[in-house]
Amino acid sequence: MVVKDKNNFVEAITNKSVDFRRWYTDVIIAAQLADYSPVKGCMVIRPYGYALWENMKALLDRKIKDTGHENAYFPLFVPESLLAKEAEHIEGFAPEVAWVTHAGNEKLEERLAIRPTSEAIIGSMYAKWIDSWRDLPVLINQWANVVRWEKVTRPFLRTTEFLWQEGHTVHRTEKDAEEETLKMLEVYRDFMENDLAIPVYTGRKTEREKFAGALKTYTLEALMSDGKALQSGTSHNLGQHFAKVFNITFQDIDGERKFAWQTSWGVSTRLVGALIMTHGDDSGLIFPPKVAPIQAVVLPIWGKKEREDEVENKMGEIEKMLTGVCRLKVDRRREHTIGWKFNEWELRGVPLRIEIGPRDVQKNQVVLVRRDTREKEFVPISELKNKVLKVLDDIQKNLFERAKKFRDENTREVSTFEELASTVEKKRGFVGAFWCGDEKCEVEVKEKTAATIRFISPDSKEGKCVLCGKTGHLVYFAKAY
Amino acid sequence: MVVKDKNNFVEAITNKSVDFRRWYTDVIIAAQLADYSPVKGCMVIRPYGYALWENMKALLDRKIKDTGHENAYFPLFVPESLLAKEAEHIEGFAPEVAWVTHAGNEKLEERLAIRPTSEAIIGSMYAKWIDSWRDLPVLINQWANVVRWEKVTRPFLRTTEFLWQEGHTVHRTEKDAEEETLKMLEVYRDFMENDLAIPVYTGRKTEREKFAGALKTYTLEALMSDGKALQSGTSHNLGQHFAKVFNITFQDIDGERKFAWQTSWGVSTRLVGALIMTHGDDSGLIFPPKVAPIQAVVLPIWGKKEREDEVENKMGEIEKMLTGVCRLKVDRRREHTIGWKFNEWELRGVPLRIEIGPRDVQKNQVVLVRRDTREKEFVPISELKNKVLKVLDDIQKNLFERAKKFRDENTREVSTFEELASTVEKKRGFVGAFWCGDEKCEVEVKEKTAATIRFISPDSKEGKCVLCGKTGHLVYFAKAY
Repeated sequence: MVVKDKNNFVEAITNKSVDFRRWYTDVIIAAQLADYSPVKGCMVIRPYGYALWENMKALLDRKIKDTGHENAYFPLFVPESLLAKEAEHIEGFAPEVAWVTHAGNEKLEERLAIRPTSEAIIGSMYAKWIDSWRDLPVLINQWANVVRWEKVTRPFLRTTEFLWQEGHTVHRTEKDAEEETLKMLEVYRDFMENDLAIPVYTGRKTEREKFAGALKTYTLEALMSDGKALQSGTSHNLGQHFAKVFNITFQDIDGERKFAWQTSWGVSTRLVGALIMTHGDDSGLIFPPKVAPIQAVVLPIWGKKEREDEVENKMGEIEKMLTGVCRLKVDRRREHTIGWKFNEWELRGVPLRIEIGPRDVQKNQVVLVRRDTREKEFVPISELKNKVLKVLDDIQKNLFERAKKFRDENTREVSTFEELASTVEKKRGFVGAFWCGDEKCEVEVKEKTAATIRFISPDSKEGKCVLCGKTGHLVYFAKAY
Repeated sequence: MVVKDKNNFVEAITNKSVDFRRWYTDVIIAAQLADYSPVKGCMVIRPYGYALWENMKALLDRKIKDTGHENAYFPLFVPESLLAKEAEHIEGFAPEVAWVTHAGNEKLEERLAIRPTSEAIIGSMYAKWIDSWRDLPVLINQWANVVRWEKVTRPFLRTTEFLWQEGHTVHRTEKDAEEETLKMLEVYRDFMENDLAIPVYTGRKTEREKFAGALKTYTLEALMSDGKALQSGTSHNLGQHFAKVFNITFQDIDGERKFAWQTSWGVSTRLVGALIMTHGDDSGLIFPPKVAPIQAVVLPIWGKKEREDEVENKMGEIEKMLTGVCRLKVDRRREHTIGWKFNEWELRGVPLRIEIGPRDVQKNQVVLVRRDTREKEFVPISELKNKVLKVLDDIQKNLFERAKKFRDENTREVSTFEELASTVEKKRGFVGAFWCGDEKCEVEVKEKTAATIRFISPDSKEGKCVLCGKTGHLVYFAKAY
């Protein structure tokens, strides 16, 4: 049997600046966020990673409900004939679909797709449920697992199975659907910036990059600390594409039967990857307090044997004081040195460390150490509760400001293809340039620079396409995950 | 296009005493808890049903966490070779497994089972994670969807895909595992009796009825109001069965490497079926307040046109007063009559109705109507808040007492096979009798009466087997879902 020496994992992490890619997977495994499973491309989300996801889910779920949506649950399986109804949709997803062909010992009459997304199965139900304009809008969200068979996978960023939420709404008018699409884009922005401390750009995707079956796709794009962009969420105006093939109609106020207008929108466990790559450093993870599974860890420095009871008592007092105030962990383990524990909780991204030793007991104080800046501060125990809340709040803000500064510094505008190519190559980040709107130019840039158009700028500036020189709109290019 | 007349659904429900089976599905569809989907055997859980499940989930999740467990997430897929490692396990589940054989256009090298339960995939990870007695106990729970291909399905009770939680724990000793198994049985009992108001008997399953791969299975058995039993949850002591095939070992305190001891336990969306069949009546659903998606509905009786503003104002006052106090719905719809609304909210099982009309406004009162007893009471608005809380509490208790009375009255003990057969046939309910422990007698009773042994009584009484006369233990038979 292989000896599993868990006591040495802190040293095993690759330096972030040396190999970002390896640092990313090292930190996930060592911090016990996730692990590889015996199923190719599927990961196990371990309790620490899942607690993070639960916190994220609770915050986003609240925002989704506060904007009038209800949760529901639709089947995992989509019959092949249903999935195939919308032509662009099946074309886009077919190469990634996992197919169930047998049940028990019997061959199924029709193959069942494991849902890669649920427009088809949900659309078929909406056709049944919606009859009149009074039934609209339908505002439903689903938290579920989906499967897309990917050739190359990485934990959280791209896995064969992943967890997500998918909103599916139906509206009376085209205007209502567009408003919903943009409203949810803003709900996501609020969540990403205020809860995850990840600044995002939002804008439309090009025709080439939009969701298979959508009329328009809007995206939230974040910048990872290696300079690559990450698509963090999307909101689609589906127009009447699915309504027409699934026959989702309603009797309008004017008595006429019309096709409905739809949207769909989703974010996934990929956002855990975004958190890691936005905030982490050479020592490991840094979690924004709002979603951190553990917000503060209390570490005793035992000192001399005869003083241990004093430390233990004071620690108990602190535990009592902070329970319910923040998500607290008291680490009483004896089998590890204090240095090892410092490393471990830094690696695991806990925003705040509270140290207490015999000297601190005498002075009725603790040592507070911030994970983000490593600032150390002595705090009287009488002030601890308010201080903890304040510092957690500061960390949340600082992480956002720091990420925003990095993102802004790495957003550049260029006017020639040569500048575009060299900026993408040497500096990475988002590179703004004009594009004529022609897919040919879009593909040519991709082939030559490996950068794709991440989003079309919402502002209406016009200028000359960096490739062909025709007049076009401002778009942002980046290498992306 | 078929005209969907939703305004007449209240009348469409079959009378419960006439056809219980049809009543059950009628009420599910009409109350919009769930709907049939285009996938055979799979249902859609609609927002009202899903809100119920979310409330159930939140309460049970709290209890699972309070007993020291953490949530995690494991893959949907189980490679065939893993599932087949434990011989009894694969034998029990193979006939029900949905198999993924293709991804995109490629045939997979090894078939993947959609998890029917996760002992195998989780066991393979535990073997990797556990090294020393210090790593134990491992106390992990998962909320997930599972698939079992059933020939005959019914909404919530038996569906091809269903939602559940499955706990999977690992322990140092046999005693620890047995204690965990029984602890979770009690957690489930607490949840079922105190939150769902469903009284349960608990006890061991026979060898024939136990979980495929377990050492022992304990069950919670409830009595539905048609006199049939429903297995509502199970807690398994897995012994070392899975540890031995997955090589889950640890170095014990004494330095020796030993196989670990495991448990698993689960409840599912089947509990929604249990709620419906325990509490419902001819008018539809009755939900216990603790899990009801809507605990109180406010219905305006508009009266004369010139008085409508007064009613609206008073209703707004009530809405403000009760928001945050209970889960409240104010039904302002104009397209339905008040009688239709009464029927609808009764059908949908809302525990408390609050009516307000012009006369009530004058008297500064409302009419409170309980769903369980239909008692009507005039309540001064100044007392409304406390009254609502008190009545919701009363309804919760009354539903439990009522169900317990019915269950107790329908639990009988018999001493001969003839009595057993006639009681099962004519009275249904739980029928206690002695059984020698031989599978032959167990099967013979089943073949002759269609009743199965639901559980072995935890008490140690002994007596003569109703079939063969040999000495045996007290067991309870029933026809079951």
